[in-house]
Order: sequence, then C-alpha cells, then structure tokens
Amino acid sequence: MLKSLRSDILHEAESKDLKVIIISAEGPVFSSGHDLKELTDEQGSEHHSEVFQTCAEVMMLIQNHPVPVIAMVNGLATAAGCQLVASCDIAVASDKSSFATPGVNIGLFCSTPGVALGRAVPRKVALEMLFTGEPISAQEALLHGLLSRVVPADQLEEETMRIARKIASLSRPVVSLGKAAFYKQVHQDLRTAYHLASQTMVDNVALQDGQEGIKAFIQKRKPVWSH
Amino acid sequence: MLKSLRSDILHEAESKDLKVIIISAEGPVFSSGHDLKELTDEQGSEHHSEVFQTCAEVMMLIQNHPVPVIAMVNGLATAAGCQLVASCDIAVASDKSSFATPGVNIGLFCSTPGVALGRAVPRKVALEMLFTGEPISAQEALLHGLLSRVVPADQLEEETMRIARKIASLSRPVVSLGKAAFYKQVHQDLRTAYHLASQTMVDNVALQDGQEGIKAFIQKRKPVWSH
Amino acid sequence: MLKSLRSDILHEAESKDLKVIIISAEGPVFSSGHDLKELTDEQGSEHHSEVFQTCAEVMMLIQNHPVPVIAMVNGLATAAGCQLVASCDIAVASDKSSFATPGVNIGLFCSTPGVALGRAVPRKVALEMLFTGEPISAQEALLHGLLSRVVPADQLEEETMRIARKIASLSRPVVSLGKAAFYKQVHQDLRTAYHLASQTMVDNVALQDGQEGIKAFIQKRKPVWSH
Repeated sequence: MLKSLRSDILHEAESKDLKVIIISAEGPVFSSGHDLKELTDEQGSEHHSEVFQTCAEVMMLIQNHPVPVIAMVNGLATAAGCQLVASCDIAVASDKSSFATPGVNIGLFCSTPGVALGRAVPRKVALEMLFTGEPISAQEALLHGLLSRVVPADQLEEETMRIARKIASLSRPVVSLGKAAFYKQVHQDLRTAYHLASQTMVDNVALQDGQEGIKAFIQKRKPVWSH
Repeated sequence: MLKSLRSDILHEAESKDLKVIIISAEGPVFSSGHDLKELTDEQGSEHHSEVFQTCAEVMMLIQNHPVPVIAMVNGLATAAGCQLVASCDIAVASDKSSFATPGVNIGLFCSTPGVALGRAVPRKVALEMLFTGEPISAQEALLHGLLSRVVPADQLEEETMRIARKIASLSRPVVSLGKAAFYKQVHQDLRTAYHLASQTMVDNVALQDGQEGIKAFIQKRKPVWSH
Repeated sequence: MLKSLRSDILHEAESKDLKVIIISAEGPVFSSGHDLKELTDEQGSEHHSEVFQTCAEVMMLIQNHPVPVIAMVNGLATAAGCQLVASCDIAVASDKSSFATPGVNIGLFCSTPGVALGRAVPRKVALEMLFTGEPISAQEALLHGLLSRVVPADQLEEETMRIARKIASLSRPVVSLGKAAFYKQVHQDLRTAYHLASQTMVDNVALQDGQEGIKAFIQKRKPVWSH
C-alpha cells in the first residue's frame, strides 16, 4: 500500500499539467495505518525497519513534492492514517471524521505518527492522543491545527475541489517555489529564514509567471500563465 | 516546596507499579509560584540562582520522567504555577480555572514560566500574558493549547482519573519508550526525527509487550502486559 | 513606506518615556503590503532585493525593539500587511478584520509573509492561506494564533489602549529584559532555554525595579518604578 501510494504521488510529478494532488479514501475509514500482520516476530526486525522507513519516505515525499497535496478525509484516520493527514499540506475533513493514534492499546506506541502529529498540533494535545489512544473529533482537530477546514460530509468533495481548482488555476512554478521555500525556512532562525525568503521573492519576481502576474495586475487584466 | 515536589515526582520512579502521576492541589489556588520572600536582596543572587535552577530542574524532570505526568487544575495557576501546568505532559482543568504570568506587576518578568508557556501556546498569546500579567480563562487556555481538556469542576477528578486509569492499563515500557522518543524527535529536523522514530518503532515491536500486543490483536483477545 | 515605518519605530526607542508602540491604520485597509509597481522588470533584481530586505529588517526590528509593539487592526491586512500583524508582539483586531496572503493570485508567492505567518499559526493554516490566497476572518485568526484578541470594531481602540496603558504602567527595563529573553529562549532546546531564563530572572531580581516590586508586594503597597 505504501509503495503504491508512493508511486501514485510520484506519477507525472514533473509534468506541467499536474497542479495539485488530493488523497482520499472510499468507505468509512480514511486509513487505519499499518497492517499489523507485517509486524510480528516472524518477519524479523529488518523487515519491520523497512516498513517504517518506507512509511517515513512517503510522508516526507509529500512535503518535498512540487505541488500541494490535500488530504480529503471522510471517516476515521488512525495511526499511520492520522500521520498521513498530518503530513499533507492542507487537510479538509467532514464533520463526522475522527483522528486517533491508538498504538498504545496494542503495545505499539505511535512514535512515527507522533513525528507528524507533534508538528501539527500543540504538544499537550499530541501527548494526550498518543498516551490514551483515544480519538479526537474533526472539530477538535480543526481547533488544534490538524485540519485546516471542516465541512458537513455532503459538502466535503465540493469544498475540497473548490480549493484544488483554485490552486490549479495558479502558476505551477510559483506555487512550487513557494512551497519548497516555506518548508525550508520554517525551521530556521528568523534572520536566516528572512534571508532565504527574500531571495525566493527576488527569484519569484524574475520568473516569467512572476512578471506576467505583476503586469496583469497593473494592467487590470487576468494573467496568462506559461508555467 | 520545589524540593518536596521533586522528591515526590522521583518517588519509585523506576517501579514497575508506577504508571502515571497526577499533580493536583487543595483549595482555590493550584499554585501561585515562588515565595517572593525568597527573592529579596537579603538572600543574595546566589540563593536566587539556586531557586530558579531548582525550579527549572523540576520542570525538566517532568518531561524526562518515564511515566506520563498529568496536571489536574481546579483554580488559579500563576507564574511558576502556570509554568508547572505548561510543563506537564497532559493538563486537565475545571472550567473555573485561570492561568496567568503576572510577574511584571511586581517588577519580575515571568521569564522562566515563559520557557514552558512559549512552547505550549502561540507566541502572541504567550506575549500578551507575559506583558500584561492578565489571566486567561480555562476555555482560552484550551483554545490556545495550554490545556488538553476542560470540564465542569464537579467532573474534574472523574475525567482526570478516567485518563489516568486508561494510561495505567497500558504497558509501562511501551509508554516510557514512546514518551522519551516524542520529546527527543519533536525538536529535530524532519529526516532526523523520522530516523529516530522509525528505530523507536522497531525497538518497540521487539519489546515483549510489543509482540504480546500485536499477537493479542491478531488473536482478538486482550493483551497481558509483562511490563 | 517601509523606511518611514522603520524610522517611526526607531523614534526615541531608547527614551525612558517610551513604554509601548501601537501600529494602526486609517481607513478600511490595515495594509495591503508592497507596491507592485516597485517590482516590475524595469527596477531590476537589485532593487527588488533591497525592497524585500528592507521589509525583513523592519519586521525583525519589531522583535528586537526594547518595548512591546501592538498591532491594532481594523480591516484588511494582506501580504506584507498580514506579515506585519504576524510580526508584532501582540495583535488586537476588530471582528470585521480579515487576513490574507494573496500573492499567488498575481504570480508572486508570499514567501516573506510566510516567514512570520508560519511562526504564528499552525502549518496547515499557513499553507492553505499561502496556496489559495483566500482570506481568513478575525475569529479564525484568533483561533489559530495570529491574533491574541478580537473585539467589536467600536471597542477596538478602547481595548487596545487598555492593554497599552497596562504595559505603560509597568517597569520599562523589566519588560525590555523579559521581551529580549523570551525571543532568544523560544528557539533553544529546553535545557539551554532554562539556563538563559534562570539567569534572566536573577538579573531581573537584581534590577532596582525588581527589588522595588518585590518589596512593594511584601509591604502591600504600590511599587514606584525608577525605570
């Protein structure tokens, strides 16, 4: 499943026609994470190690991908499924969705999900989820920053597509440049971050689509992106 | 008081029977922090230094402790008392509780409380509290991440005990391993964090309770922890 | 505009009489950021570079300033205007205000605003704003940590002045010492942060206003600051 997800995410990643990716699921569960049958004694720790490393690679791939990746969640997202939501750039969920890191219940603390969760929500919220394994609601997930938007289930696809279409209407190289710079600067000290981001702005202005956008704005017309 | 708290936190810390710690108070004040009589000229700056260093040691001890530490707050938590709440892994409060860092009012900026507060709530919220000394309500504290849960006063003990009992029902070595890894990875860059957390998962799977939990799940029975 | 703002912020910065700065605007727009006419091909990349660096300097100046800086927002704050709000120590807004980083719409990703925004709100909220360019309301901005307080428009000035007067009633050297220590420690690891903050507390106690405040508290009288 992880390899298939990785392959899908990488599919035509460099194509000018790819503007945005939506990750969604069918049925009442968004994702419940790893298949525990892959984690018994019989497979051995080398296999376990490969499973968790592949998982981490897929999660990091989302941040390193040139286009925005949106999680569209309608249902339960647990363990590595919750990690997947936390790892996307944007996360939209139906109000019936819920989120949990229940590994402790079966003696397997959700340490890798905790990497993504601990960077998405306040520490106390992450730790209560990790220590108790109990789910939080979509509204709580929004309150704490795990989601950027919550809507009724029957508006989920419409709202997600609205965001996706908006992103698809923009200049791909501009969005890619901005996404890469954002994730790079957000961990740096303020001076280093501003140095990087100021240079990114200068590079952005110099892009063909940067100049087209500014000219179109001044001329009060719609920009025509060359990507 | 700080030494007594430290001694209580360390009491039987390594015992297999200790699964979770709850820090609570009697009366309408959870904690109002340092005794100002210890901070006058007469004691001298060496004594002042010892007071603040002991305080910092106790706060860090909570994160380094092998079991989860829950703050159960019913009332006012100010200055180092607010720092104590911010330093716990989980914080549950009654809806009548409030939180402040009022040191500026008496010419003593809450800089050490600001270490814990600045890591628990958004920067603007921390700074408004630190600069004005004014209290925030339990609901605001929940909104901003200082608390993980707010309940009516008459349900505070029940709700806190529910969380504590849940944690006590889990495997202690699994929870300890996960807690240590969480605090270590949360400051690292994403790749380093995933490297650490993936190795933690592999180590966790290899624990006796890790294998017992997975087997019990596959066999659809309750796990029996050996701790 | 940036140079004028810088000059105003630096005006009598070292005067004992300056206790707090409020940044506000007249009319329905708080600030809409850069003048795009300064960013066309004709000016050349050296000029663009100077524009963004001056902007970053002004934003960092706010954090490095000895007194608290409050944004009082009544209206729309976009791009570098949103960055300005995110860069202030405290931000109070009317409930009609809104906040956006709409650069993507004109092919210029708000990378420098993203530096301040990414440190004020959860990552998913920042990225949805940056990728879609769509505004968030004052209530959403409060929920996510961009603001510390939202009030009806007709109470905005009163509420902001209340906070400012409170800060102005405090000891300036105590507030300055605390502000500088807060921003320094907040990026450090916990042990280093506590070492710095404990030393700051000791230094604070030794200040004339530190001793005056503690004595006044013990003697149950109002402190008289010498600044």
